[in-house]
Amino acid sequence: MFEFEIQKKHMHSGARLGTITTSHGRIQTPAFMPVGTQATVKALSPEDLKNCGAEIILGNTYHLYLRPGHKLIEQLGGLHRFMNWDRPILTDSGGYQVFSLNDLARVTEDGVTFRSHLDGSRHLLSPELAIEIQQSLGADIIMTFDEPTPPDADEAQTLQSLELSTRWARRCQEAHTRKGQTLFGIVQGGMFKNLRNESARQIIDLGFKGYAIGGLSVGEEKALMLELAEHTAPLLPENAPRYLMGVGTPDDLIDCVKMGIDMFDCVLPTRNARNGTIYTSEGKLNIRNARHRDSDRPLDPECTCYTCKHYSRAYLRHLYMADEIFAMRLNSLHNTAFFQKWMADIRRAIAEDRPLDWRLPESGENNGG
Amino acid sequence: MFEFEIQKKHMHSGARLGTITTSHGRIQTPAFMPVGTQATVKALSPEDLKNCGAEIILGNTYHLYLRPGHKLIEQLGGLHRFMNWDRPILTDSGGYQVFSLNDLARVTEDGVTFRSHLDGSRHLLSPELAIEIQQSLGADIIMTFDEPTPPDADEAQTLQSLELSTRWARRCQEAHTRKGQTLFGIVQGGMFKNLRNESARQIIDLGFKGYAIGGLSVGEEKALMLELAEHTAPLLPENAPRYLMGVGTPDDLIDCVKMGIDMFDCVLPTRNARNGTIYTSEGKLNIRNARHRDSDRPLDPECTCYTCKHYSRAYLRHLYMADEIFAMRLNSLHNTAFFQKWMADIRRAIAEDRPLDWRLPESGENNGG
Repeated sequence: MFEFEIQKKHMHSGARLGTITTSHGRIQTPAFMPVGTQATVKALSPEDLKNCGAEIILGNTYHLYLRPGHKLIEQLGGLHRFMNWDRPILTDSGGYQVFSLNDLARVTEDGVTFRSHLDGSRHLLSPELAIEIQQSLGADIIMTFDEPTPPDADEAQTLQSLELSTRWARRCQEAHTRKGQTLFGIVQGGMFKNLRNESARQIIDLGFKGYAIGGLSVGEEKALMLELAEHTAPLLPENAPRYLMGVGTPDDLIDCVKMGIDMFDCVLPTRNARNGTIYTSEGKLNIRNARHRDSDRPLDPECTCYTCKHYSRAYLRHLYMADEIFAMRLNSLHNTAFFQKWMADIRRAIAEDRPLDWRLPESGENNGG
Repeated sequence: MFEFEIQKKHMHSGARLGTITTSHGRIQTPAFMPVGTQATVKALSPEDLKNCGAEIILGNTYHLYLRPGHKLIEQLGGLHRFMNWDRPILTDSGGYQVFSLNDLARVTEDGVTFRSHLDGSRHLLSPELAIEIQQSLGADIIMTFDEPTPPDADEAQTLQSLELSTRWARRCQEAHTRKGQTLFGIVQGGMFKNLRNESARQIIDLGFKGYAIGGLSVGEEKALMLELAEHTAPLLPENAPRYLMGVGTPDDLIDCVKMGIDMFDCVLPTRNARNGTIYTSEGKLNIRNARHRDSDRPLDPECTCYTCKHYSRAYLRHLYMADEIFAMRLNSLHNTAFFQKWMADIRRAIAEDRPLDWRLPESGENNGG
């Protein structure tokens, strides 16, 4: 099943408060999805994720296809059972990773030929295979296989690329037969507003229950990313969820919610946690910093997560400096809880028609992330 | 507070069923203590440890002295609060690590001069400093600082060494002033039964509330280790707990419980877990083994730990091969639960006067550990 209901529109912006209902449960939107690349959100258990407030996580088709293999996961009852996560899952199509992890990926009408980053073996990922993999994994929401246009592509290349993505999106629709699983389309169009219009028109024309905006993830130039997201969001149907892939920082999330985006995913909270960069209501900090050496304070005095309830900065710094595995879990748990609380605060502001006008404070700490 | 009560003696062996009571709670004996070297039992949370059934853990004076420093931990409320563990803790004295981690450690009457394995800085660890550190950490049970006699020492060297350890033990007693914390003595004597007798006589003469047998940990020659433990255990006072340091495998634990040993510690379950070697009621297995690739079975069908309740061997193998942090936690949790259940089974057999006649089955799997 798949339902998207908008409970309320924000008085001060384009933001919407909504609910997505899937057969694995409900997701309150705007929602941030922690990334579980290899059938695990790094360093966290499913219970940790639930305690942080996560209602949906993301899995990576590219990674799970190569290891342990989608057929194996299917044989073991699907991704939910395999990784012991009984709430909704969204899988991406692998299109992004095929390019970001393979310098020599080659595109034909058929699909993308690439070599595994694990063992160098040759593979052809096609729209049909991307759907087959995602059907085997059994996520609640799956994505069409598209070509992420390189940010430096010129207009002609970008047009060619988005039209290929549209043809692939149609092939994905035809290949998709699994019930209880919803396919989202992806709008591309690179850095050109007119081509974003064109891609949106073509993808909406195919008809999906949800729409993603691709090619604008963290790493692109920030001002341009925001401008293009702001341009694209209102092109998408009002009554379907809008998903901005690979975004973003806490401030990005506020900016993009105001544009009417409903769903986000990003590795930032967990990857930064593993580097020691911690998000707090007072700004970012790096736990390696010597100023935390003897601090009895929690990471964030306003946070009620497991880490902040039980551990001092001094302890967390010690674990980090001593290269202890438990540091990875405690930091990841806090950052994940911080992002979930950030979204809950956003949802509450929409519900209460308060302006979405706050930012992550500057910490004044050289936090390197 | 410190009380040791023997509830029952075993009909078929020298084993005893007992209870140690400390101000942080009760420990059922015979007990196995997971090792929390750097103020964390690697990859596990305090809740994980409790769910495994651990009633006491061990901390390492040497490591905590060098990083983050005992004064820092004291200032933050002691080791219990620092690491969020509210059950009993035992700290060793650092004597073992000073030698095992420093090839050039130099012994004088005063103490041991060594260089930090972290930064090469010079330190002198003396009986007085070992007690000062352990008083700052605030463990419930602390150990005298002794010289672990090298296993290849001759009789004259061993005698000299055990007599030095006795003098140091007396200095530890004099230095120890902290209330609510109990100091155990350690019997050395190397590979010589007559010198084990001599050391036991001297240490018992000093008078402690508990006695450890040192110098026989995993890594020594197995048959000789068992023979010397069996010789030494009955030399120790009946009404005090007996602690065999650094032992051992599941079979060692049974053998040594039968000699009347009450306490054990070893890194084996957690270190092996991180190498992929798993203890099960069917024997050891290595989770990397290709035969587990598509296995829907839990690690151990007889185990009720979190890992076995929720995850297949196929999932655990996938996490391990993908180098995921969560693998370390799930494997460590299972092995720790296995060792705790092993001890609970031993205690039940003593209580019911059944023979302690079982062994860990041979798995037939080449498990490399």
